[in-house]
Amino acid sequence: MNDFTAADVDGKRVLVLGGKGFLGTHLVDAFVRCDIPVRVFDRRARQSLDPALVDVVDSQNDVARTSNIEVVTGDFASGEGLADALDGVDLVYHLISTTVPSTSNANPIADVQGNLIGTLRLLEMMRDAGIRRIVYVSSGGTVYGNPSILPVPETHPLQPLCSYGVVKVAVENYLHMHAELYGLTSNVLRVANPYGTHQHHIGVQGIIPTFFKKIADGSLIEIWGDGSVVRDYIHVNDVVSALLRAGARDRSGTFNIGSGIGHSVNEILEIVQRYVGQQADVRYLPQRNFDVAQIYLDISKAQRELDWQPLLSLDAGCALYWQTIKQPARPRNAAGYMEPPQ
Amino acid sequence: MNDFTAADVDGKRVLVLGGKGFLGTHLVDAFVRCDIPVRVFDRRARQSLDPALVDVVDSQNDVARTSNIEVVTGDFASGEGLADALDGVDLVYHLISTTVPSTSNANPIADVQGNLIGTLRLLEMMRDAGIRRIVYVSSGGTVYGNPSILPVPETHPLQPLCSYGVVKVAVENYLHMHAELYGLTSNVLRVANPYGTHQHHIGVQGIIPTFFKKIADGSLIEIWGDGSVVRDYIHVNDVVSALLRAGARDRSGTFNIGSGIGHSVNEILEIVQRYVGQQADVRYLPQRNFDVAQIYLDISKAQRELDWQPLLSLDAGCALYWQTIKQPARPRNAAGYMEPPQ
Repeated sequence: MNDFTAADVDGKRVLVLGGKGFLGTHLVDAFVRCDIPVRVFDRRARQSLDPALVDVVDSQNDVARTSNIEVVTGDFASGEGLADALDGVDLVYHLISTTVPSTSNANPIADVQGNLIGTLRLLEMMRDAGIRRIVYVSSGGTVYGNPSILPVPETHPLQPLCSYGVVKVAVENYLHMHAELYGLTSNVLRVANPYGTHQHHIGVQGIIPTFFKKIADGSLIEIWGDGSVVRDYIHVNDVVSALLRAGARDRSGTFNIGSGIGHSVNEILEIVQRYVGQQADVRYLPQRNFDVAQIYLDISKAQRELDWQPLLSLDAGCALYWQTIKQPARPRNAAGYMEPPQ
Repeated sequence: MNDFTAADVDGKRVLVLGGKGFLGTHLVDAFVRCDIPVRVFDRRARQSLDPALVDVVDSQNDVARTSNIEVVTGDFASGEGLADALDGVDLVYHLISTTVPSTSNANPIADVQGNLIGTLRLLEMMRDAGIRRIVYVSSGGTVYGNPSILPVPETHPLQPLCSYGVVKVAVENYLHMHAELYGLTSNVLRVANPYGTHQHHIGVQGIIPTFFKKIADGSLIEIWGDGSVVRDYIHVNDVVSALLRAGARDRSGTFNIGSGIGHSVNEILEIVQRYVGQQADVRYLPQRNFDVAQIYLDISKAQRELDWQPLLSLDAGCALYWQTIKQPARPRNAAGYMEPPQ
C-alpha cells in the first residue's frame, strides 16, 4: 500500500509541469528521495519561492538534490519552452493551473485561454513526440458542483459552479478522448483540498496554512459564510503517494483523492487554535454563491485500483504541518531549493 | 402538444444566432409564420445560401417575410457585431457552431477558440445587457460518447470522443453555472441527427440530403465503416417545434431531442433508393475511430416537460424532403430568401 520505488518508474524519464508549485515541489522531492532524476517545467519568476508568500520548506527537503533535478523555464499558456521540456520524456505530470477556483469566475475567458488551450497544445506536442503517459491533477472540490450523494463517487454527474471546475472537466474530457483515440495512458486525480508546506498562505490556495499563519500572527481571519461549509482536506504527503502510484499505472483511469472525511471550516479553526495555543480573531462574511455547502469524496476506487491509502488524519496532518513550519528556515540555493544542513 | 403561437413569446424580442444556417433558417421561418418579428445574426457571406451547396428552399418558405426579419451580420468567433445584435433582445437562440464533429479533432484549439470562447463572450455580453433567456443547441450525437445504455437518457455520463462534443459539454456547463449563479434561464437541447432542406449536402452535416443528391445524380456514395452504424435521425420540423417550446419555457433544463429510434446507415440508403427509384453506387471505407457504434436518444423527458412530440417518422420525413426538393427552385431576394410565388 502506497509503496513506491525507482522500479515503479522503470527507467521512464519524468517531467513535472508546475514542479515549483505547491504539489510539484513535494512530488519532485519524492522522486529525488527515490533517486529518480526528474525534469521540472515552471515559470521563470516563480512566486511560490518568495519567502514572504510561502512557508519554510520542511526538513525532508534538505537533501542535496539539485543534481537530480533539471529545471526548464517557460510559459505554459503560450507554450514557450514546452518543447524543450518535453524532449526525451516518457511520463508527464501536469500540475499547472493558471487560475484558482475562487477567482476563476471573474475571467473565464482567461481561464480557458491559459488552462484549456495550454493543455490542448501540450497534448498535441506529446502526441507528435510520441509521449504516451500523463498524470493530471483535476479538482475533486469543484468538478461535481453541489453533490447529491456524500461521499461523492467518481460516477457522480459533473456540474461545476465555477469556471475552474468547468475547465478541469473539459481537460478531463480531452484526456479521455486522447486515451480512447490515440492510445494515451491518462490518469486523472480529482484531488480534494490539499494542504501542507509550500502552500501559499495568502488565502487563495488553502485555509490551513492561512489559519496557522494568521492565528500565530494574531491577525484577523475572514471566513466566507458561517464556517459550516464542509470540505475534504488531505495532507500533501498523501496526495504525493497517490501521484506516484498513478504514474506507475499502465492503464487509464479517473480517481478521487481525498481523506474521504468531511470537516467544517469551524472544526479546522478549532484544531489550528489548539496547536498554536492562541484564540483566533474571526470575522464571518456573507457566503459566496459558488461555494458548495458540503463535499467529501468517496475514495474507495483509488484505494482499490491504485493500492493507495491516505495515512495522515486531519489532526495528525495539522500536527506535522505545525511542527515543520516552527523550525527555522534554511538558506536556499540558486535554484530556489533549500541548501543541505551544514 | 407542440403547439406554439405568438402568445408563447409574450412580447419577447427574439434573436437567432446562426439564423441563416440549416436549423436557423427553419426556426426563423417558423417565427415569421407566427407573425413574430425576429432578428438574425449571421456571417456576412453565408455559404449555406449558395445554391450549389444547399437544397432548394421548401415551398412553406415562400411567404413575404423579410419585413419581419432584421439581419445583423458579424463574426461570432471575434464577437464583431454581436453587441448590435443583442441590443434590446429578451431571448437568444444560440445555433452557431464554427466546427462540425467529423473534422473538429483536426484542430481542437480552433474549436475552443471559435465556439467556447465565443460563447463565453456572448454570456458576458448577455449578462451585462440584462438578457436572461437562452436556448442552446447542443449535440445529442456526441456528448455521450459511446453510450452504455440505449436509448441514452440525459443522465448518462458525458464522455465525448470528439472535440466538437467536448466543447458542447463545456458550453453546457457554463450555461448551467450562469443559471445557478446569475439567474439565467437556459434551455439546452441535445439534438440528435437533424435532416431537412437547407442542409449542406457536401457530406459534413447530414447523410440524408447527401444520399438523395448522390443517388439522384448517380454519383458515388462513400460510407465510413460497413453501414451498420446506428443514429437517431430527426426531421428539422420536429427540431423547430422543440426549439419553440424551449424558448417559451420559464425554467432551465437540458433535453434530448431526437426521434428516440435508431436507424443504420444502410437502412437510410434503402429508404432513399426507394424514393429516388434508383440504385446507389456505394463504396465502404474503413470505420473512423471517433464514430460511436450505436446511439439513439431517450426523449421521454422532453415529451413530458416540454409537452413536445416528434411527428415525422424517418420514412415520412424522407418522403417530405424528397417531395420538397423535386419542386423547381424559386428566385431569391437580396437577403437570400425566396421570393413569394408570382
